[in-house]
Amino acid sequence: MSKGDEKGMEIRIEEGNLRGFCENILVKVGLSREDAFIVSDSLLFSNLRGIDSHGVVRFPYYVRRLKEGGTKVNPRIQKIREKGASVLLDGDNGMGQVIGMYATRLAMEKAEETGVCLAGVKGSSHYGVASYYTVKMAEADMIGLSMTNGPPVMAAWGGAEAVICNNPLSIAAPYQAGRPIVLDIAMSRVAGGKVRLAAKNKQKIPVGWIIDRHGRDTEDPNDLPDGGALLPFGEHKGYGLTVMLEILAGVLTGAGMLGQVPMWLKEIRTPLNVGHCFIAINIESFMDLEGFKKRLDWVIQEIKSCPPAEGSTGVFFPGEVELQVEEERRKRGIPLSEAVLEDLKGMSETYEEPLET
Amino acid sequence: MSKGDEKGMEIRIEEGNLRGFCENILVKVGLSREDAFIVSDSLLFSNLRGIDSHGVVRFPYYVRRLKEGGTKVNPRIQKIREKGASVLLDGDNGMGQVIGMYATRLAMEKAEETGVCLAGVKGSSHYGVASYYTVKMAEADMIGLSMTNGPPVMAAWGGAEAVICNNPLSIAAPYQAGRPIVLDIAMSRVAGGKVRLAAKNKQKIPVGWIIDRHGRDTEDPNDLPDGGALLPFGEHKGYGLTVMLEILAGVLTGAGMLGQVPMWLKEIRTPLNVGHCFIAINIESFMDLEGFKKRLDWVIQEIKSCPPAEGSTGVFFPGEVELQVEEERRKRGIPLSEAVLEDLKGMSETYEEPLET
Repeated sequence: MSKGDEKGMEIRIEEGNLRGFCENILVKVGLSREDAFIVSDSLLFSNLRGIDSHGVVRFPYYVRRLKEGGTKVNPRIQKIREKGASVLLDGDNGMGQVIGMYATRLAMEKAEETGVCLAGVKGSSHYGVASYYTVKMAEADMIGLSMTNGPPVMAAWGGAEAVICNNPLSIAAPYQAGRPIVLDIAMSRVAGGKVRLAAKNKQKIPVGWIIDRHGRDTEDPNDLPDGGALLPFGEHKGYGLTVMLEILAGVLTGAGMLGQVPMWLKEIRTPLNVGHCFIAINIESFMDLEGFKKRLDWVIQEIKSCPPAEGSTGVFFPGEVELQVEEERRKRGIPLSEAVLEDLKGMSETYEEPLET
Repeated sequence: MSKGDEKGMEIRIEEGNLRGFCENILVKVGLSREDAFIVSDSLLFSNLRGIDSHGVVRFPYYVRRLKEGGTKVNPRIQKIREKGASVLLDGDNGMGQVIGMYATRLAMEKAEETGVCLAGVKGSSHYGVASYYTVKMAEADMIGLSMTNGPPVMAAWGGAEAVICNNPLSIAAPYQAGRPIVLDIAMSRVAGGKVRLAAKNKQKIPVGWIIDRHGRDTEDPNDLPDGGALLPFGEHKGYGLTVMLEILAGVLTGAGMLGQVPMWLKEIRTPLNVGHCFIAINIESFMDLEGFKKRLDWVIQEIKSCPPAEGSTGVFFPGEVELQVEEERRKRGIPLSEAVLEDLKGMSETYEEPLET
């Protein structure tokens, strides 16, 4: 679900409170304090930036999977292959965020020496928001790429059934002003959460968002859970991109591919064997860092100095809106829908962990 | 211009004849036989695969630039930086295809040792079709990525003016059946050539392809050369992607950026300082090659076995249609429009190089 999709976002909780709440419960179900920090940090990163689809709304599912054994509490992450600037990891089906950050740090460490590093991962789980890892790389003054595969929820272009994931891609880079420029996009026209929200609100959706179980255009959001499928963004282009991301994150890593990846929200006892691909690029192997940042700053200023088109609210660089939301939410807290708040209150009781609102 | 855009494609020339014609003229204007081969090979690669926008239609412009000095006949390609799996080249403003293949070969050579290699390039020119390089990498059993920047022809999302190039991205990988799967997309909704063709044919174009000089939606294709701009595909997603490609191919390499890159068809005496980025991934650093190809073959079969959606002609993998066109054109020759044929005949006279039709 993208920003603004939650209905009735009026209850706000201070970021630190939510963070501590998640972290403590994760420790209670068995994660190390360090791993619990990473998972909570990824969730709050999403909520702070307005990407609420990947924020605490997912937290109950993560905990349920840990309790039911679909995700391992203490995975043994192993290097399977390592050669020069490439490394392949088996995450032992632990938390995707923990495995993802392990791979990201390794990629950065190696890129320090080799200029660039590709870290492939298999045996992982849902890794949260793709830009969590790229922003970490950009904050360490590298260019970062992050991609993952997932269960089949999207149709191929021209196809009548869900066959591939709307795989996300994130790329981030540091610039002069000190905050990263960051792209984070899924390969579907809209997120599944947006369709589910329309169904909840009894609203029609525009043609082009999904197809129904017969592969036909539809304006009824209820057709998605009833055997329908998301449609790729940009027609054949978004479809082609998701296939290539499946190759990099899934085929190359030895992970599950397409329908081999279980629906993680439903099959909570099944290890997922999701695959990721991280690329870290050490800018200083190409030019001096300050020079790079000045150049990127110039690009951003050039783009932003464009007059807005008719009806447009302005020109933004990738990730700029998220930065604005972050600033606001750091001050005013994270807005939560009643449904999400209820879920969290339930967990508060179950795990005897107070949630300060 | 994409496939099928040329009007009246009825005259066909055998591929080998066109190839020899281009190669000989390039040698006559001063290129080495080897460099002339690469440029001609890239042009014919495009025409064979139906990507006529990047085929021999561009040949007269390339030759004119070589004659006028905007592109150097015998550039001195130099390594500026080299560290582990990263290398940065200065192409000395020679032919983009020659510099691009130099970088591609170097990337593959290094990836043989380091598992992955990123070759950045500055001081280059228009490098033809992006997939020429990735298919070469896939044919050598690697996964290849290729991207370039270029002159500003596209608006930022929400902007009223052309400020950035519709930068292309290609990714290719080898699979069991022996021919590569290959994505090759530009970041605009449609190619500029498609708009120019509509103007020539006095046809309207759909809203969403371009904006006019005031940043307004328009159905008049003549608004594009009159200060208009192409629009990104997939709205903010295609826009965001093109910015990140500009960073990888332009900012990181020290090349010209955005409006610093001259319009190559117009400013034929000006060196372009275009930037490229190539990434070669050595599959065997991650898993055994045959295993990879079998896995990718399975993915392709799974996707292709999807029933087609209503009104669709079927499900194709990225690059499949191009393979079909290639097979047909190898047999039946390359179809050329009268306008292109006239241009080539003019060159035939000027350079006293026979063109067998």
